[in-house]
Parts: sequence; structure tokens; C-alpha cells
Amino acid sequence: MLEKKNIDETLSDYKDVKIATICSHSSLQIFRGARMEGIKTVGIVLKDRRKLYESFPLGKPDEFIEVDSYSDIPEDELIAKNAVIIPHGSFVEYVGKKFDDLRVPIYGNRRSIGFERSRTKMFDWIRKAGVKIPRVLEPEQIDGPALVKFPGAKGGRGYKIVNSQKEFDEKIGGRECIIQEFIIGVRAYPHYFFSPISKVGYKTKHGTLEMLGVDKRVESSADEIARAVSLGMKPPLSFTVIGNEPMVLRESLLYDYMNIGEKISDTSFDLFGGVIGPFCVETIINEDLEIYAFEISARIVAGTNVYSLHSPYSTYYYDEPMTNGRRIARELKNAKKLKKLNEIIY
Amino acid sequence: MLEKKNIDETLSDYKDVKIATICSHSSLQIFRGARMEGIKTVGIVLKDRRKLYESFPLGKPDEFIEVDSYSDIPEDELIAKNAVIIPHGSFVEYVGKKFDDLRVPIYGNRRSIGFERSRTKMFDWIRKAGVKIPRVLEPEQIDGPALVKFPGAKGGRGYKIVNSQKEFDEKIGGRECIIQEFIIGVRAYPHYFFSPISKVGYKTKHGTLEMLGVDKRVESSADEIARAVSLGMKPPLSFTVIGNEPMVLRESLLYDYMNIGEKISDTSFDLFGGVIGPFCVETIINEDLEIYAFEISARIVAGTNVYSLHSPYSTYYYDEPMTNGRRIARELKNAKKLKKLNEIIY
Amino acid sequence: MLEKKNIDETLSDYKDVKIATICSHSSLQIFRGARMEGIKTVGIVLKDRRKLYESFPLGKPDEFIEVDSYSDIPEDELIAKNAVIIPHGSFVEYVGKKFDDLRVPIYGNRRSIGFERSRTKMFDWIRKAGVKIPRVLEPEQIDGPALVKFPGAKGGRGYKIVNSQKEFDEKIGGRECIIQEFIIGVRAYPHYFFSPISKVGYKTKHGTLEMLGVDKRVESSADEIARAVSLGMKPPLSFTVIGNEPMVLRESLLYDYMNIGEKISDTSFDLFGGVIGPFCVETIINEDLEIYAFEISARIVAGTNVYSLHSPYSTYYYDEPMTNGRRIARELKNAKKLKKLNEIIY
Repeated sequence: MLEKKNIDETLSDYKDVKIATICSHSSLQIFRGARMEGIKTVGIVLKDRRKLYESFPLGKPDEFIEVDSYSDIPEDELIAKNAVIIPHGSFVEYVGKKFDDLRVPIYGNRRSIGFERSRTKMFDWIRKAGVKIPRVLEPEQIDGPALVKFPGAKGGRGYKIVNSQKEFDEKIGGRECIIQEFIIGVRAYPHYFFSPISKVGYKTKHGTLEMLGVDKRVESSADEIARAVSLGMKPPLSFTVIGNEPMVLRESLLYDYMNIGEKISDTSFDLFGGVIGPFCVETIINEDLEIYAFEISARIVAGTNVYSLHSPYSTYYYDEPMTNGRRIARELKNAKKLKKLNEIIY
Repeated sequence: MLEKKNIDETLSDYKDVKIATICSHSSLQIFRGARMEGIKTVGIVLKDRRKLYESFPLGKPDEFIEVDSYSDIPEDELIAKNAVIIPHGSFVEYVGKKFDDLRVPIYGNRRSIGFERSRTKMFDWIRKAGVKIPRVLEPEQIDGPALVKFPGAKGGRGYKIVNSQKEFDEKIGGRECIIQEFIIGVRAYPHYFFSPISKVGYKTKHGTLEMLGVDKRVESSADEIARAVSLGMKPPLSFTVIGNEPMVLRESLLYDYMNIGEKISDTSFDLFGGVIGPFCVETIINEDLEIYAFEISARIVAGTNVYSLHSPYSTYYYDEPMTNGRRIARELKNAKKLKKLNEIIY
Repeated sequence: MLEKKNIDETLSDYKDVKIATICSHSSLQIFRGARMEGIKTVGIVLKDRRKLYESFPLGKPDEFIEVDSYSDIPEDELIAKNAVIIPHGSFVEYVGKKFDDLRVPIYGNRRSIGFERSRTKMFDWIRKAGVKIPRVLEPEQIDGPALVKFPGAKGGRGYKIVNSQKEFDEKIGGRECIIQEFIIGVRAYPHYFFSPISKVGYKTKHGTLEMLGVDKRVESSADEIARAVSLGMKPPLSFTVIGNEPMVLRESLLYDYMNIGEKISDTSFDLFGGVIGPFCVETIINEDLEIYAFEISARIVAGTNVYSLHSPYSTYYYDEPMTNGRRIARELKNAKKLKKLNEIIY
């Protein structure tokens, strides 16, 4: 992994701060938010995607860099433009392991992404935080429906369900994967924002935590599988994310969720210097109101896209429109003013 | 039940009006709304919940009263502070039958809550209003899936399904409960607001009715049970509310829903002097667009939390942000101006 | 069909432009949007619906015309008032085939509605556009669950599921209908807006396309059928629309969706001179992210009602509240200024 001091050096040469990211995932929100804060933006874009992004007068980046593949990040050009990368889910996915060594300054702590990429590290993080997690199973422990997940966050695509070791051996074989107990409940995806410099929000050991929204992923076929089942069909249960929808939590659950956010945040500092900025704890809540964390996204999640300008929670913090995209831009602006950019960039 | 004249007396000593409630359920919205209207707020809070509420600069109350248990309402202190209580679902649940005799002025008609607490009275209210209601069954009438509900609105927790008298006898026995026919359809929760003093909205016998929003409760495991069923599992169907999501109704159904709201409102005056302020009629709509009311919440419902600032319906009434929380504060402000506080407080 | 030149003549006599529609479907949004743009409105209303519409100070029309039946459009009166009709789903349904010959100017291209009314023409349109469509089956091709749809968009009411030719013959017989393959996936309803005069949005052959929002229809019993199925019941799967809920798409799907919108729009010009203004392509997305279009609404859809003031997508185009209703009014205002009303009215 590129060392922090290298990024600090690059950053010290910056005369300006621009926001850059790949045109996908939550980039419209990121560019829109930057525009609201008066920060210029750079969109890394595939040639055939450019027209789409140009069609949004307020969602498009101020300038584009066209690339042939999202795995080739134009590092020199971005540095020359004084760009700071906002890593979102597609960015992390497309760039892969090269992410760790990108010479371009990245908003947040780039170490976070390694803990998102490796499910072993991620689950270890959740456990160390003392948050409930679905049991991780060895093939021989499978004694009912279990979820098999492969490396990478491909929007839930390709997850498999197996019911026994036999089925696991047949369907999965020796592929690298993780087996998780299937929990019956309802999913909720809270969007946290950690700041080491803000005074607003829930105080933690290392800074403050805001909860800017909650969403529910919409998964195909899972979210409409009942229709087929009611017809007597036996369709495979699959979890390809096709979108997101808004929701709010029972207010009494906020206490538990802020607690989970705090523990995940505090533990991230013990493990790797902390998640800086947005993150999400993917949870499922059973009928006894027990909350299980089954994943962490250590950067902005796409579920934040459901909130245009305000979320039901952002209005308890801000008296102005505040999306996750805008919150990131605001943080960069504030850090610059306080000469603390190096505390939120690596 | 404490007599109205006692409250009127207390109220006549008030130099000011503050809004007070327990920190739970919809309190962030209530405090936020009061802040928008310039009314000071008091949060009754458990010591360990205080930090959470302090973390919301615009959602927190102006001052806190810490308590050891929510069943001990600090009445003298609240009266000394000139507080008017906004009763929400958790307030009503935590305080229990002591509610009727609270010496603190309560926004709305405190008699309403008795009709929410007793399912017998509630169902009688729905029937008298001429609104369709799922059949209430005697154990010997159970001839298919039926819902067994116990006293109190514990967010749907603990509801049971039984299929026959035999199963009822085994699972429920002699416990106090109500058995309701299981209706197949989709649920919708309209949020009404009744005002005896406003000129805005749908005219009824006793005042005006607004419909400020509609939501759908998110219940665990019911809302994702299809996943388990598709895997061949036979999980119990349970209805623990974990949150809410926004929805709008077909515009042609608004006619029916405003009709239902009016009938429930008018009948509430015949029965107990009327619901004043927010209420919700919990409904289920079948494939023939027949609407069944299965419950009434005779106060603000948590589903109102899904709307930050505006709802799809509030914008047809107001040219400014209007939540249920703000609407309540606005009502108190207007009544104060008109010297009619005693018409909306008991 | 009434000729365009007749409408152009009528329009040339207009001193003013008012917006008129039947009080149903999305009329509150349409009237509200017109009000935001300073355009006067006329509501065609049944006597017993009038009180409901009068109850919304900002959603009601400026004036009402009471009718005994929505199939009797008061044409002379509307023309005398310089009204332009906004055709919504209920308007089209109530007026039926008389629609084509209405002497009142209609916003958009009235030819569009014929292609919405006839499923044969609609499917032809989708196919010609090169968009995936569920297989349309002959009775003898039914080899698993298939959807039987009857003429007209009655909000999904009365759709049937059959599993075999035998079942088809028994349940449907010789009734006019269309049989569609049952696709397993999740539905998404994007709201497009085509303008021949605007510079904002995605450039197409004939103008620009905006994507102002996405919703999901809420259908009874389909959307809660899992509850009954989990109890061992075998309820019929039915699709009566009772409302709508908001959603956003994965940002990477926007590329595909804008592509679909463009192809449907371009092809509409080849077929009948183009859809002008709002339209919706009803889609279902399977687990492989393949998008099937199963219907087109060639006018404003009710799903637009879920967005109060802003949608997650409208904010990427506009720095002010922008609903579909307001967008229509804005378009009329702009066209009037440009003296191009005749390009968007027929």
C-alpha cells in the first residue's frame, strides 16, 4: 500500500481541491453535492457513458476524462488537476487491488477498502466491534439454507443458496467463498458519516457520527419472488441489486443503530486507523428486534441516492438540503479551511 | 379520568406553552416541528438515551428531563415549565393507564387514548362509523388463518396466527386477546389531522380534516418472509414493526380515504368528544379495492417519520415544509393566538 | 381521428392557455404544478368528488366544471375557457375511443393514446424499438404461468394467471385479451419527459429526454401475497394497483434506461409522429439485469405522484422543485413564449 506520507506530499502541492470519481454508482449525487458547495468536479467516464452524464446539467461533472476502461485510472492527469478521488462502490470494484497504490489522494482512509474487500477481515471487524453477525459456516456445518458469497461487492450478483454440504460441494466446489447463515428478518441499510473535525452529531472516541439516512436495497428476484412462489413455481432466490428504496427505522431502534455505528467506527480505528467519511452497516432485523450486521461498506453506498436534497434524518442535523454527496464536499471544504485536509485524505 | 376543568385551570395559569414528550417514537419530528414554529420543547429522556438525542442539533429538545423510567412522568416539573404533552405511541404505551389521570395538559382529547387502548372500544368505533372491518371471531368461529392480538400497541410484536380453534386453545389458551379474520391485500396507513379551528382542508361536522401522508409499516418477518418461503422453509409469520416506508394512494382512492377519515372523525365526537389533532386509520385494501380498517391510532403515528419536510400530500395544503410534528406546533400556536387552547388541549 | 389542422385552428383562437383535466389520477399534481408556473386550471369533476378537490388549497383547480359522467367531456365550455387538456390515465380510460375526436386541444400528440390503447400496437412499438419484451403467447404456447390482460389500463384490475391452454380455455374462453409470458424479476417504472423545444436533458433525434423519476406500483394482492402463502394459503395472484412507492435505480442501469427511453421515443416518431411530453415504460428486471418492457404509458403516469416537489432525479436537472405536473406547465409556458404551442399540442 502506498504510504500516507506520499499522499501528504502530493496533497501539499495542490493549489486547489477538485472532486473526482468514476461516472457510476453515486457519482451524480457526488457531483451535485460538490456543485452545491462550490467545488469543481472531474468525471472519469467511458466514451459511451459520457452522453448520459452530460444530459444532467446539475449532476454532471465540470469536466470529463474519457477512459477505455475503468481499471485504468488516469493518475497523472488527476493529480495535475488537483483532484481528490471519492471512492464509491463501483470505483472500488472496477479498480480492484490497484486501489491501494493509487498515487492520487483519496478522500477517506484507503486502508478501509481492504477491510471491505476481504470478507474475512470484514467479519473480524464486525465481531471485534461486538455487533451480532450471522454465523459463518464451514461446509460441514450447513444444516439449512445458507448464503454463499464470492469475493467483491458485485451488487449481490451471483450469491447462491445451498441447503447442505452435498449441495455446496456440487454447486460451489472449491471456489473462494464465504458461507453465511440465512437469517429471517427485514434488511435495513443505515448511512453513517464519520468526521474527525465536525462538532455536529454523535460524539465518539475519535470524532462525530451522523446518521444521514436509511434505505432498503431492491433485489431481483428476491423482492418479488413471492409472486412466482404463489403460482407454484420454484424460482431460485437471487439477490442482484437493481435499486434502492427509502425507509425510516422505529425511533427506538435509532439507539441501537447509533450504538452499532459507534462500535464499528471505534473498532475501525483500532484495526486500521478508522473509516473516515461515509460508511454503511448492512443489517437484518428479526422479529425479536435483534439486529445482525452481515456486511460493511467502508465508503459511500448507493442507497444514499434515494434521498433528493433531504432525508428524514438529515433534517435533524441540517437546516438546508444535505445529501451524502454534499456532506462529503462540505467536509473537504471545512477541512481545507482548517488546514486539516491530510486528516481526511489518504 | 381527570376532569377537563382541572386541566383548563392548570392551563389558565400557563404563561407560555412548551411542547413536551418522551424521547422516542416520533419525538425528533415533534421537536423539529416545534423548533420550526418557534415553540420551546422539553424531552423526557432515559439517562442512556440522552446522548443520542443530544446528537441531533435540530431534532433535540431545548431541554431535557431525565427519568429512570418512562412510566414516571415528572408531572410537577412539566407543569412548572408550562409544558403541553404530545402523546405518541410510545408515550401511550409506557405510561399505560396512568395516562388518563396525568395532571399535565395533553394536546388533543385524552379520552381518545382509551378508545385506542381497548380493542373492543376501537372496533366498536370503526363499526359505528360504518367503515368495513375484518370480522372479529370467537375461537369456535376460526376456520382459516386468523390473527390473534393482545392488549396494547407494542409495534405488532407478539401477534400470533392460528388456523383453528384447536390451535387457538393450544397456543393462546385463556389469555386476553382479540381474534381477527386474516385479510389478503395490501396495507396503507393514512395520516389524518383534525382541527376544530383551521379553515384549511376537508370540512367535517366539527372542523377540518387534512390528509398529510400515507405510509406502509415495515414488519419483520412478514415483509421479507417470501425469501424464506421460496427456500422451502416454514417460518412463522410475525409482524414486529421495524420501520416505515413512504407510499401514495391511487388518486381515486383518496375519495374513499377521506370518506373513511371523515366517518371515523365524526363518530369520535359522538363517542367521546372527538379525536383532536393527528390520527391514523390502519387499513388493508384487497384486490377489489375494498378497504378494511383494522385499527385506529388516536394520536400521531410513527409512519409520519418517513416524510422529511414535505409529503406528497402536504404540498397540496401548504406552500412550505409541513410535517405532522410541525402541524401540531402550528396548531398550538394558532390556538394560542385565538385564545382557544382549551379546545385542543385536555 | 380529428385532424391536426382543426386543433391548430382552435388553438389559434386561444387568447390564453389554461390547463384542464379530469379530477383523478394525477390531477392534484397537475393543478399544483400549473399553479407553480402561474397557469390557470380547470377541473372536470363529478359532483360528489368536488368537495374532496376543494379541500386542497394548492392542489385544487382554479375552477370546476361539474359533469355527470367523465365520459361526457364538456368540449365547448373547455374551448371557451381556452383550455388545453392534460390526458392522464383515468382521462384516457374514462373517455375511451371518443378521445381521438375531442375538439379540445390536448397537450401532447393524441395519436400516442391509440398506441397505448391497443396492446397489439404497443407491443409492436416496443419490438420495433428493439427493446426486450416478454414473449406474447398463443393459447397453445402456454407452458407455465402466463399473464392474461384485457383491453384498457384499469389499474391492473382483472388480470388473470393461467398455466396451460386448458386453464386458458376454461377461465378466459373467447374474450379479447393478450397472453404474456410471466417474467420473474423486479418491476421499475421510469418517468420520461420528451420535449421538442427544450435544450435540457438527453439529446435524441427529435428533441430531449429527461428522466424525472422512477417508482414501483403497489399491487393488491401481489405485493403482500407472501404473507398468505407463508400460512399455507393458495390465494389468487392479482395486480390491482392501489398506489405507488418511490425507488431509485442502480446508477449503472441509468445508461440502459436512458437507452430504452431514447429508442421508445425515436420509434414513436417513426410510427405516429412521436410521444410529446411525459411517458413511462413499464419494465421488469431479472437477476441478470436484463430489462423487459411489458407496457408503455404514453402520457403522465400516476407513479409521478410519489414525488413531492423533488425526485432523486429531478434534482440533477433543476435547481428548483420540479414535478411532472410542473414540468408540463413549464413546457406549455415555454412553448407559448416561443410561439410553438402547436408543436406540443394536438
